[in-house]
Amino acid sequence: MIDTVMQSEQALADQRVDTIETPALMLDLAKVDRNIARLRGRLDVLGVTFRPHVKTAKSIDVARRLFPSGEGPITVSTLAEAEYFAAGGFTDICYAVGLSPDKIGRTRDLVARGIDLSVLIDSVDQAEALGEAARDGAPMPKVLIEIDCDGHRGGLPPDDPALRLVADSLRDGGVTLAGVLTHAGESYGARGGVGLPEAAEAERAAAVAAAEALRAAGHAAPVVSVGSTPTAHFARNLDGVTEVRAGVFMFFDLVMQGIGVCALDDIALSVVATVIGHRPEKGWILIDAGWMALSRDRGTQKHPVDQGYGLVCDIDGMPFGDLIVEDASQEHGILKLRAGSTAALPDLPLGSRVRILPNHACATGAQHETYNVIEHGGHAISATWSRMRGW
Amino acid sequence: MIDTVMQSEQALADQRVDTIETPALMLDLAKVDRNIARLRGRLDVLGVTFRPHVKTAKSIDVARRLFPSGEGPITVSTLAEAEYFAAGGFTDICYAVGLSPDKIGRTRDLVARGIDLSVLIDSVDQAEALGEAARDGAPMPKVLIEIDCDGHRGGLPPDDPALRLVADSLRDGGVTLAGVLTHAGESYGARGGVGLPEAAEAERAAAVAAAEALRAAGHAAPVVSVGSTPTAHFARNLDGVTEVRAGVFMFFDLVMQGIGVCALDDIALSVVATVIGHRPEKGWILIDAGWMALSRDRGTQKHPVDQGYGLVCDIDGMPFGDLIVEDASQEHGILKLRAGSTAALPDLPLGSRVRILPNHACATGAQHETYNVIEHGGHAISATWSRMRGW
Repeated sequence: MIDTVMQSEQALADQRVDTIETPALMLDLAKVDRNIARLRGRLDVLGVTFRPHVKTAKSIDVARRLFPSGEGPITVSTLAEAEYFAAGGFTDICYAVGLSPDKIGRTRDLVARGIDLSVLIDSVDQAEALGEAARDGAPMPKVLIEIDCDGHRGGLPPDDPALRLVADSLRDGGVTLAGVLTHAGESYGARGGVGLPEAAEAERAAAVAAAEALRAAGHAAPVVSVGSTPTAHFARNLDGVTEVRAGVFMFFDLVMQGIGVCALDDIALSVVATVIGHRPEKGWILIDAGWMALSRDRGTQKHPVDQGYGLVCDIDGMPFGDLIVEDASQEHGILKLRAGSTAALPDLPLGSRVRILPNHACATGAQHETYNVIEHGGHAISATWSRMRGW
Repeated sequence: MIDTVMQSEQALADQRVDTIETPALMLDLAKVDRNIARLRGRLDVLGVTFRPHVKTAKSIDVARRLFPSGEGPITVSTLAEAEYFAAGGFTDICYAVGLSPDKIGRTRDLVARGIDLSVLIDSVDQAEALGEAARDGAPMPKVLIEIDCDGHRGGLPPDDPALRLVADSLRDGGVTLAGVLTHAGESYGARGGVGLPEAAEAERAAAVAAAEALRAAGHAAPVVSVGSTPTAHFARNLDGVTEVRAGVFMFFDLVMQGIGVCALDDIALSVVATVIGHRPEKGWILIDAGWMALSRDRGTQKHPVDQGYGLVCDIDGMPFGDLIVEDASQEHGILKLRAGSTAALPDLPLGSRVRILPNHACATGAQHETYNVIEHGGHAISATWSRMRGW
């Protein structure tokens, strides 16, 4: 048996961006901390609780940059995340994906272990399933009703009569209604920041209107939860909102840069890769990072600036003019100048290293086991942090 | 600490497609075996060695369906795969991605452990790096020169004078030239099988011409390796070829069905998911499988039949008419009838289970830790097989 674990531990001692086995995921911690401070500062001014979404990072180590004492509040996208962060000491968790009845048991296991867990529903069927489960008298999670603020995905419109029916069903079943939650997913369709203050206001207004409708019908709805990274950065007024969620803001990515929420220099995540070949007659440079390392996400495909499978930077993280990963197969990336570019193809001989900024940090991160932590664009890897996965 | 490992082991005992935590990856072993037998039978008739690509499966257990005695020959896309399969007993391995000089050390470690390893290059720079490394007299991998048969990615055209220069450089450096390798990557652009016999013949002709050019220049080039799943299934004559590579054929997927290489019923891989909500006014059914479970691969986007993020089947794997995963966020999938469909939206109440056929088996498989093995479309999970990942 070849002991690859032993090998990788030995190699870790002196790993650097210029020596690590490629492809590998880099996380610039100075940028992460700056991105966190920026949004936390905004939300402090607006006077709301911050409940960051940890689905982008999926890492206790990253989450501790948000909460050094490690209790939350946090938002998760899977029950495996909830269990992982609970095992790591986080106690205040919102599972923000519509609940299927067969997952109720796992949510109750978390509550039984002392986790302050809220779950999300948008139908009487879900409320009845919770009420059915609650009959045994054991502890249940709290419930948020999902509100649709922009037609993006699930949820009830704030003026939907079903809203009250869901709340009534919960009450009849003896399950606690905590409040409402909405997500302005359509804000990802913005470009250059245009329309984001309005999207934030529409998100706020929908959530507050829904909470007020519930209160008018005699239901306590103390929690009014809103959030997406774009709207969280452009909201001017959060009256009536109690908490804001956002996830990708920690790392940022090319989609967020295209939407107008961050600058290229704010992107904390990159994939380091090595040049493995050239096709000068085609203007191609081949690297050892394909979609397995970058993900298949083409989130900038419809943006005015299409970044292909990622924007190519030098080993220090400075972008080359117009050089993108134009195509990707499983373990090959093809670098090419953007169509119409007048820039010169950089001289990148065999063995050269580049760093690729991702379209979508959540998707690119998910392709990797670990973060290799660097600081202020340096080459020294100060730590490797593991990521969790699965459901 | 919550012991999630213990929980999952307890749950495994009686897992079924209709009770397993969703989303989860299903592998129909009867279809895998049938797909393997089909291609192996073809290649036996054509009189060539079969060197399957294990990058799709990334699993010792799946590879043992190909090689019960577990020695190969196999093809891999990363050195981590080579190390994993070597640790599992495989001894004859081709690493079929262009070699970067900094990976030479790891390839030599494998050779030193007795692995019959070949690596791929297409430049004098790579040949010189190998020659430089060989100076210490320790064992080196064998080398294949990559040939470009269709302008898809890397490699030298068979009539490129550089072909001989690379071979000369290897000889000067004391490194063994094993032969040539090509991959008809452009065959993925075919539809309904049209043009695939011709693509297979072009692939064969390019590889054989390159090998003959090397032999005419005094180089032994015993290995003539070709392959892609589409061309492997449509080749009519493989004169001069010594081995064929293919990977996705084991599982197949919607891209291969669109290309015309398999039927829907041949697709062995699927993702089981649970209904979490409805938006009847939009014709949407929401499930708990988003791109994290399905991948961001949109490989059928330019096909005449665009399958979205996957084709939706009932729990037995029978497709619903025209129902696809039209959109996906991280943990949500939106099911909708294909544009223009006259089919009826199936009645799938909250908690119903569906199975999604993937666009691209390599990409969807990579999103999961394990295969849940079923047979002949049954509901009982007979085994869980782990997948490897990383580089």
